[in-house]
Parts: sequence; C-alpha cells; structure tokens
Amino acid sequence: MHFLPDHRLTQGLLPRRAPDPDEIEIEVAYGGICGTDLHLFHGAMDWRLKQFPHVMGHEISGRVARIGNKVTHVCRGDPVTVMPLHPVGDDPIRRAGLEHICESLKFLGIDLPGGFQSHWTVPAHTVFKVPKALSLRHAALIEPIAVACHDIRIGGVKAGDYVVVVGGGPIGALIACVAREAGAKVLVCEVNEDRVGLLRRLGFEVVNPQSLDPLEIVKERTQGTRADVVFEVSGHPAGIKSALHLARARGVVVVVGIFTTPPPVELFQVFWRELQIRGARVYEREDFDRAIALAASARLPLDQLITQEFPLEELEQGLRQMETGRGAMKILLRINP
Amino acid sequence: MHFLPDHRLTQGLLPRRAPDPDEIEIEVAYGGICGTDLHLFHGAMDWRLKQFPHVMGHEISGRVARIGNKVTHVCRGDPVTVMPLHPVGDDPIRRAGLEHICESLKFLGIDLPGGFQSHWTVPAHTVFKVPKALSLRHAALIEPIAVACHDIRIGGVKAGDYVVVVGGGPIGALIACVAREAGAKVLVCEVNEDRVGLLRRLGFEVVNPQSLDPLEIVKERTQGTRADVVFEVSGHPAGIKSALHLARARGVVVVVGIFTTPPPVELFQVFWRELQIRGARVYEREDFDRAIALAASARLPLDQLITQEFPLEELEQGLRQMETGRGAMKILLRINP
Repeated sequence: MHFLPDHRLTQGLLPRRAPDPDEIEIEVAYGGICGTDLHLFHGAMDWRLKQFPHVMGHEISGRVARIGNKVTHVCRGDPVTVMPLHPVGDDPIRRAGLEHICESLKFLGIDLPGGFQSHWTVPAHTVFKVPKALSLRHAALIEPIAVACHDIRIGGVKAGDYVVVVGGGPIGALIACVAREAGAKVLVCEVNEDRVGLLRRLGFEVVNPQSLDPLEIVKERTQGTRADVVFEVSGHPAGIKSALHLARARGVVVVVGIFTTPPPVELFQVFWRELQIRGARVYEREDFDRAIALAASARLPLDQLITQEFPLEELEQGLRQMETGRGAMKILLRINP
Repeated sequence: MHFLPDHRLTQGLLPRRAPDPDEIEIEVAYGGICGTDLHLFHGAMDWRLKQFPHVMGHEISGRVARIGNKVTHVCRGDPVTVMPLHPVGDDPIRRAGLEHICESLKFLGIDLPGGFQSHWTVPAHTVFKVPKALSLRHAALIEPIAVACHDIRIGGVKAGDYVVVVGGGPIGALIACVAREAGAKVLVCEVNEDRVGLLRRLGFEVVNPQSLDPLEIVKERTQGTRADVVFEVSGHPAGIKSALHLARARGVVVVVGIFTTPPPVELFQVFWRELQIRGARVYEREDFDRAIALAASARLPLDQLITQEFPLEELEQGLRQMETGRGAMKILLRINP
C-alpha cells in the first residue's frame, strides 16, 4: 500500500475496516479498469465524489476475508464478485422495483469507496459467489459481462437475430460476445484498428465506418431488411445517427453509450420506420446471475479480451494506457492474485 | 364540380372513373382536413405528387356507388370509410408483415388521388364498411381515430396508466380520448388557448406549458413517479425534450409528431432512466377495426371535436381557417352529405 501523488488515483489508502453485521470484507484479487474510471481520473465526475482521496474500482473479484454476523450466503475464503449497486433510500423508482436505476442509488467505486485496494468492505447484498472453476482473473470481468447481459435483455435479442454493435470497446465487444451466445449474427462497427483486429480474431465481422459504409454491408447480409437490434455503444452523434439507419423497420436501438450533450436524433426515421430506442443502464440481479453462468461456461473469449495487466501500484499506467486506446481492450489490475 | 385557381386545392376535378374488378367507387359524403393537407397546400410535399392538379383528402366517409366484379365485402349503398394505404410492390418491410410502413406504400390523397371529390374510385381492400347507426359525418373521423388507436397500441397504454399528450391538436385530442377510453388518466399539454378550452370542456386536465411547468403537475398527480406513457404530437424540439422528462423510469415516449429536422434529444436521460422512444406511423387494419367500433360506440365526443364545416367548394377557406389555428380542432368538408 502506498500513496500516489494524484488523489484521484488513490488505492489501498483506506485502512481495513471490519464488516458491520450486514457487510462483507473482500480480499480483492483482480480489478478491471472501466471507462468510467478514466472519467473519474480526468475529474469529470468530481461532483459525485464524497471525499478525496477517492478509491475507484467496481469490476472486482476476490475472496471473502471477513463476514458480518448477519451474513449467511457466503463463507470466509469463498471466491466472489461484487454487483456495485447500493440503494440507500426510498424513492418512486425503487418502489416501482427498479432498484438498479433508482434515485437513491449509490454506486460503489463512485459514490462510495471502490475496490482498487487490497481489502474492500461492502454491503453483503452486493456480493455474489462465483464457481470455484472460474479463475478470479476471469471473474473480474463479470461486472462488464453483466452490463452486456442487461443490454441484450433490454434489446430483446433472440436466436437468429441480426445484431449490430456500434462501438467495439470493452463493453461493445462483450455485447457482441453475449449476443453471439444468444444465437445472433453479429456485426461490429469500430474505428480503432487495434480493436478491429482483435474483434476479427474473435470471429466477428467488423466494419470500420471510416473506410466502408456499414449500411451497405448490413443490407447485403439481411437481404435488405437491416438489423433487428442495434447497440449504440460509442456515445458519439455519428454513432446514434448510424444506429438508426442500420435498424430495420420496427427494429430496436439500445442506447448504451453515454451522451454528455444531446445529439441531433432523426426522430423522423423513428416515426417513419416505427423504430424503438431503448435506454439500458447497468444491470439487475438476474443479469449478474447470467453473467456469472456465462463466464463460468468458458464460452466467452475472456483471455483474449484481457489485453493488459498491471499491478495495483501501476493504476496510473493502466489509465494512461487506456487513454491511448492502442491495443487496449480490457485492462486488469493484479491486487492479491 | 369546378376548378379553383391554385392547383393544389383542386377537388372534383377528375372525371368519375368506373371501378376496375378489384376497385370500388365511393360517393363521398364528408372529408376531414388533415395537417398533411395543409402541408400539401403549402407545396411542402410536391416531390410526392405524381400529377398536378392534385386531389387531396384521405379522411373520408361515403356510400358505395359502384363495385368491381371481384368485390364481395360491400354492396352498393353501404356506408363506408377508407383506410388510405395501398402497397404496390414487394419489399423487405412488406415481407416482414409491416404493410402500413412498407417501402412500396402509396398513400391515397398524397401519392394517388384523394377523396376531396364527389366520387372517388379506390382499391377494394382500402374500403371498410361502417355501422349504419354511425352518421357519415362522424365516420369521416375514423381515419384520425385509427391513428390514435395505433398510437395507443404502440404505446402499450393500459387501464390505470397515467398518460401525457404533448400537443392537443386534432390527433393529440383523439389520442387523449382513446387513452381515456382505455382507462388511463390523461393530461394534455397545449399552447393554443382555444384548444385548451375545448379540451377542458371535454373533461381533460390541460396545462399550457407557457404558463405552468407540466413536470410539476405530473409529479404531483403521480406521487413523483411521472407518466407511464407520453405522446409527442407537437413535432417541436421543446415537445420531445419535455416528453422525455415527463416519462417515468422505463416509461414510454411515443413519437407521433413529424420532425422535419433532427432535434437535440437527451439520450443521457434515455440511458439514465431506461426510457423507451417508439415511433408510431398511421395504422394497421386492426386499428381501423377498433376505430370503427369506438366511433360507433358513441363514447367519443366527436361532435365537439368537429369545430367547423365547409362545403367542398370552400376547401381553401377550410385550409386558411386551419392555418390560423383559431378555434379549429377538426374541420370537415361537406361533399355529398
């Protein structure tokens, strides 16, 4: 454990904290770096941070170190992952059963301390046991896999569907993998040639829209019908514009990417071809269950998706590497491997 | 029959045409003027018009005058209305069962001659018999009622839902009426004070967003949850912005209004609260059946929605009246009443 100069990078800073009766302390094994962590690093989300220095990290695997005396679903030593959602109050959205997007939601690693530390004490309800057969290295990917499972479920992807993923970063790649597992044919649009190459090695058809018009390919592959479901994962105005045109009549466009400013959206297309645009944020418990089962099935190419590893102390290098976009799909931190 | 100076207004100009084997000639009784007719009048849709002078009109009631020898579902003298959709070719959307929005669709009154003439010969499949108990004056409203039925169905409105209609013109008013019939509580947002007054007389809660924030009212009426379904019928950027905020988490926003330029859309809201935006265009046969049943049930305030009537010869006055927006909800043409 040590201090790094920039408070945003702080890891391992908090003293170990004994769990309350309904908490669990995890000895963290691996942590994945998420695009959100890069935003935190850049200071773009300071308004959500309660205290500095802040410990980030919400894609975590580890072993149970200590449990509070009310905890019954895990034992010391169990391999686990964390669903980092913690609703703390009462609000209309929570009452409607939508805890995962409720107004009182605290996100571990943003609103509360995260898992980029050697030991992490979290609410017991956030901890999911993972099968022993699943390596803790792969288990660190369960959180982003759960995002993909949620997106696929919101999109209503079925076997035989033709699916386009606009934006082939870590989340887009996992959406493509999970959609393929669901029996869909998948095309990915991605501009980063390192990612294009990796996705092709994973067996996906990939179009770089800077050199080829994806609409032509999609029309050719679908006898003119276009895609049943399109995932907008780029967060760019060009991405949503493209997504709307790639979807078939009555097709679904799932908004996964984060648009910090409202882009122009061709609502005439939405009207004319009766499209549906559906927002999808984080995951629900069933998505986490599904993600654990999928990860444990060994049917996802998790080894290939992990492109770099750094020790916890080199979090900053990990963030800098991610920033370059060169070669980076999922970057892991080794904490107590 | 006579000629009017502006070719866009032409009515009664075509000679009567004997029906082909699968056509029906209708003696037109009443015709409703639609916002689309105003666009045609202004020349905004000339690219879709095959010939000038053009006969507009697609909200029509009448009696069967002559039938082709293959027609079996109506007899001479039957009261009828027309679903003005005529697909003429093969395309992927039609093959997918979505005739009403297919690429080869011809719209009677736009792509083909319309019903603002004393006798109108149309494809037999477009003609729906209406109950004798329903006046032909009211039957002229079946087409826009079918639009409302389609919108309600696409929106998935259920009994007990809280529904907001953004834009209380003729279509918005009918959506409000049909939603109320489906058991929803309905709030209408409308800026035209003539329409506000009429909608209030019909028993709706109405907010003029220029003087009151609808979000406050909606939150109050729904204990903070907001609306289950919002219909955007204004086609204005402020309308879609408002609609997204008025919808509850996982709520539905139905895009009914026509956006000629792509407005900025807060996709972050769509993502953050998992909203759904759904396009809804015209209607399908089941919507027309439902609209006929609803109109015949006498449960819709059709008399109050018809605010003006003109003889066919005064179509231009009708369009000018509509243009002013003063007092105009639905304007009817008397043709062969």
